[in-house]
Amino acid sequence: MLLDKINDPEELKKLSIGELTFLCAEIRKLILETLSQTGGHLASSLGAVELAVSLHYSLNTPEDILIWDVGHQAYAHKILTARAKKFSTLRQAGGISGFPCRQESIYDCFTTGHASTSLSLALGMACAQDLSGIEKKHKIVSVIGDGTLTGGMCFEALNNAGHLQKDLLVVFNTNEMSIAPSVGALSNYLNKIISLPIYNRFRDALQDFVLKKVPRGRRLLGLAKKFEEGLKNILVPGILFEELGFRYFGPIDGHNVELLVTTLKHLLVLKGPILLHVVTKKGRGYKPAEDNPENFHSIGKFEIASGASLKPEGVIAYTDIFSKKITELAKDNDKIVAISAAMPQGTGLDKFALSFPERFFDVGIAEEHAVGFAAGLARGGVRPVVAIYSTFLQRAYDQIMEEVSLQNLPVVFAIDRAGIVGEDGATHQGIFDVSFLRTIPNLTIMAPKDAQEFEKMLEFAASFAGPIAIRYPKDKIPDSKFQIPNEINLGKAETLRKGRDLAIIALGSMVYPALEAADILAKEDISVELINARFAKPLDRELLEDIILRFPKIITIEEGIIDGGFGSFVKEALGNKIDVKQLGLPCEFIKQGKREDILAQYGLDAEGIAKVVKELLLESSESQRVKVKTLIL
Amino acid sequence: MLLDKINDPEELKKLSIGELTFLCAEIRKLILETLSQTGGHLASSLGAVELAVSLHYSLNTPEDILIWDVGHQAYAHKILTARAKKFSTLRQAGGISGFPCRQESIYDCFTTGHASTSLSLALGMACAQDLSGIEKKHKIVSVIGDGTLTGGMCFEALNNAGHLQKDLLVVFNTNEMSIAPSVGALSNYLNKIISLPIYNRFRDALQDFVLKKVPRGRRLLGLAKKFEEGLKNILVPGILFEELGFRYFGPIDGHNVELLVTTLKHLLVLKGPILLHVVTKKGRGYKPAEDNPENFHSIGKFEIASGASLKPEGVIAYTDIFSKKITELAKDNDKIVAISAAMPQGTGLDKFALSFPERFFDVGIAEEHAVGFAAGLARGGVRPVVAIYSTFLQRAYDQIMEEVSLQNLPVVFAIDRAGIVGEDGATHQGIFDVSFLRTIPNLTIMAPKDAQEFEKMLEFAASFAGPIAIRYPKDKIPDSKFQIPNEINLGKAETLRKGRDLAIIALGSMVYPALEAADILAKEDISVELINARFAKPLDRELLEDIILRFPKIITIEEGIIDGGFGSFVKEALGNKIDVKQLGLPCEFIKQGKREDILAQYGLDAEGIAKVVKELLLESSESQRVKVKTLIL
Repeated sequence: MLLDKINDPEELKKLSIGELTFLCAEIRKLILETLSQTGGHLASSLGAVELAVSLHYSLNTPEDILIWDVGHQAYAHKILTARAKKFSTLRQAGGISGFPCRQESIYDCFTTGHASTSLSLALGMACAQDLSGIEKKHKIVSVIGDGTLTGGMCFEALNNAGHLQKDLLVVFNTNEMSIAPSVGALSNYLNKIISLPIYNRFRDALQDFVLKKVPRGRRLLGLAKKFEEGLKNILVPGILFEELGFRYFGPIDGHNVELLVTTLKHLLVLKGPILLHVVTKKGRGYKPAEDNPENFHSIGKFEIASGASLKPEGVIAYTDIFSKKITELAKDNDKIVAISAAMPQGTGLDKFALSFPERFFDVGIAEEHAVGFAAGLARGGVRPVVAIYSTFLQRAYDQIMEEVSLQNLPVVFAIDRAGIVGEDGATHQGIFDVSFLRTIPNLTIMAPKDAQEFEKMLEFAASFAGPIAIRYPKDKIPDSKFQIPNEINLGKAETLRKGRDLAIIALGSMVYPALEAADILAKEDISVELINARFAKPLDRELLEDIILRFPKIITIEEGIIDGGFGSFVKEALGNKIDVKQLGLPCEFIKQGKREDILAQYGLDAEGIAKVVKELLLESSESQRVKVKTLIL
Repeated sequence: MLLDKINDPEELKKLSIGELTFLCAEIRKLILETLSQTGGHLASSLGAVELAVSLHYSLNTPEDILIWDVGHQAYAHKILTARAKKFSTLRQAGGISGFPCRQESIYDCFTTGHASTSLSLALGMACAQDLSGIEKKHKIVSVIGDGTLTGGMCFEALNNAGHLQKDLLVVFNTNEMSIAPSVGALSNYLNKIISLPIYNRFRDALQDFVLKKVPRGRRLLGLAKKFEEGLKNILVPGILFEELGFRYFGPIDGHNVELLVTTLKHLLVLKGPILLHVVTKKGRGYKPAEDNPENFHSIGKFEIASGASLKPEGVIAYTDIFSKKITELAKDNDKIVAISAAMPQGTGLDKFALSFPERFFDVGIAEEHAVGFAAGLARGGVRPVVAIYSTFLQRAYDQIMEEVSLQNLPVVFAIDRAGIVGEDGATHQGIFDVSFLRTIPNLTIMAPKDAQEFEKMLEFAASFAGPIAIRYPKDKIPDSKFQIPNEINLGKAETLRKGRDLAIIALGSMVYPALEAADILAKEDISVELINARFAKPLDRELLEDIILRFPKIITIEEGIIDGGFGSFVKEALGNKIDVKQLGLPCEFIKQGKREDILAQYGLDAEGIAKVVKELLLESSESQRVKVKTLIL
């Protein structure tokens, strides 16, 4: 195995170009075999093996800077940078992250996970280097995909980089297939680039014209050769990049290591911003992924031979309920339209798109526009449902505020991956949404406890008069433990169990763990009143007023940060009238691991909740004694 | 006066083209005279008078949709749409808003104020209209500037619009001068467009070539005419837009009403996305503004004859202190660099830029990139100071989280216009920042009470090891009422006055009003302990523990929303150990008015604070009586 000899990129350089090709095959095998067990981002990473090998072969990392946009294509990079032996721990608790991670390796320049950021980061580093005045400058390279380019932040950076003219290489990796088939005019443009039709069309037309209409046309064509060269400078592919101030090279085959190494050698000595366009195939080298890259974008365990998912049969996720219900609702209400930001499969909107292609919009990795566009749609009288993962919705905080909520428009936000996302780790945890969304005036926020309630909530949201969000985690959804789901009423919580000693108000995914805790406690003769909040905002103030009268203490539970979260809202509202204990997650970046393990670690399971209840009851009986004593003395 | 006859755009159509020119002059006069009294966005609005007149003349608003990006150029639009008589109330409490505002007029399709959103909104409306299946479609027009185009959201929308091919007219208004001289490769590109060099160069070269080298060249040129037309389609200015799927027309003179009306007539019947490029002059018709459009972008009262500002002399604003101090600090520390998102003057970074041009970066209206770029700079070893208004920083929530705080990089965020911004109104209030920023792990948040402390805080921030934000309002800054400013220590509050009855913890701009309140109360023998929080995050837990022991109640005061704000953080921390009363602003969109009036309205002045203290003390003495009684019984 060549790979056994590669402990860091320095050792890579001892290999011949010919050996690199074999190394790529070994890396590909390691990725495939590992991911069949751990899951992960298979298709993108298989597509970028030769890129990673060529870049590390050509650069002197970590002194030279290499930034992978998003980072879900960087497994080969990880394997080449001293992490081959640990690669089997990918995406697991205590193991290596599924994305570049600063704490993990000096070769990971930034911890990344969100798209379209690498060019801003690279440009900043290039400027810092120039300001430092060092003599021998390090190379700075960012690797972006065509999905990346649909994100506005990347365009902002391209514009700025073209202006600043710092030495910078952008490797622009277009795939035959992005996460979803690329959308937008840009992808048409990129397709054009690959086949160079403008240039070809122009040249053909010119030749035709000159040959037919011009005397001595053939001689003229020779003379025109030089002129054509000049024209080519205007008409080459990549004119968009050239216009923005980049020098464009390519497209070249991104799976040809020798060609990549030679090209990089030439380009890395050039001054100013350079863009090298490479074309790769997602899933390269593994037929099931090549044939169906979307299915192999982010996957769980699978069988290598067939590519079949080893996901347990019959498990229904929150996403599945959303997918099914929103499509059903759209059958009855032709005003409903749906928007995805490059995640039709992940959000379950692929089914909606199949049923209602003309009412489905995939706007690309463009969360800001997605939300602004939804505002326009709502203002135009239709009812948009925007499905975006919690972590990516952070991109659109201002648009939810200004375009949607300030206008009080009926936009439904379906916030998937809200809470602990598990294996994707720190960059993807959806634990901030309640805290940041509840600062937005006019916005209503809901969270369902089970499948039946989720459906009811979607019905409610689809006919609600203002902006409304529903958050739900990336996990299987419980089936209802209750006979008939209660009607959803704006800002009304649901009391699931009456109690005597203490009240728990749980939000969404935390309701059933709280219910289990109540069962445990009942066995010890502790009687807990359990309330399903349903709405994180507005609060059920009537119910809270009743609670205050009947209990000395309440506990709030949510799958999100405590800071500014749902419990904080309850605490603000109840002021000083009652003791409010907030359970939730700390305001920290939480690493990867299994969702249930992480929740348990932070006490957000039945046992953890039961424990807190007992502690509180003990504490309160003691403090009661102290208080009475003090006053009487 | 023609203007007297124009109560709505319908009446505009009764005028002849010739009369429109006179009308423009009247509108310009009204804008100039009004703004000399009210202040406002003068230069942009003077530049867009003919545009507003021509568009309303050519469209059937409000059925046809007209969306002004940002909206600071829309005064003529307001005057033409039944608001001429009320125009003198511009930007004043109870008067008309300085931006388009839905509640104000059926002609304002959206309430706007942030840049680069109009194309997303327009595209949404175009899609909604197509889905509605109505026969006679309304026209949908968005007016954008070249500043708008540097914002990533606009690019996301252009890309999507080019793909969807809905009927849509984008009027692209480039100015000789944007808010600040436009930055980025794009502005070079746009300058090229204006002078058409590619096309002109090519045509000249071709003619030259054909005339000199080709027999019967002249006849050939005639034949080539047709070919040239075809070529022009490839080579015209606006190739960037054409490549994104728009049909590009222009550039035309944006002050020629007749030309505008004729052009619009032709373009409004075309199908698909159309972009009309017009060139206007900011400040058009008012020499001081034409000569110095940046100074007349957003202004206060001024003298019409000279253009001189009537701002009281010698008033020092928070911005001035920032401007002076950051430049001083940069003299001693050559690692300090500064970043602005198209607001070098507004943020006071213009002075820094003069002293350190190579260490100043204006990235355009591109807050997302500004923050990502800062992360790159910090990672590269320099110390970036990013100065962005509170309301616009909402655009970069995700980047502060992922690019800066997740990497724990030393980026300084100078958050100007934090709190009530006054005349700019609902879209610009900087009242959400503490609430959304405190959800970000690793981020430290400060707020100064006076000039001397602000300087100390900037010193502290400039050498702090992690991400840190300083928020301060758009107003004059108090001079210190204390002898020597205490040293700033991370997370340490400052006790300004010891007291007996109740403790107040005030944040930043609320410290001096609280101090005044304490003075008022002292006269009534109420003794208040006053703490200057200094840090909104982290909290001074040691001090809080002491407070709990000594007082039954505390009040928190902040110039921001109560929901999830600083007081909410204190409440979370002190849990149930003490009564915390939060003073601050409601989670609402607050309309324009004078800052001090709005603060007084919400009880955030000395009188308001004193009143609450008295109420609380009364309440607590009563409840104490009740408690003792209950327990003894």
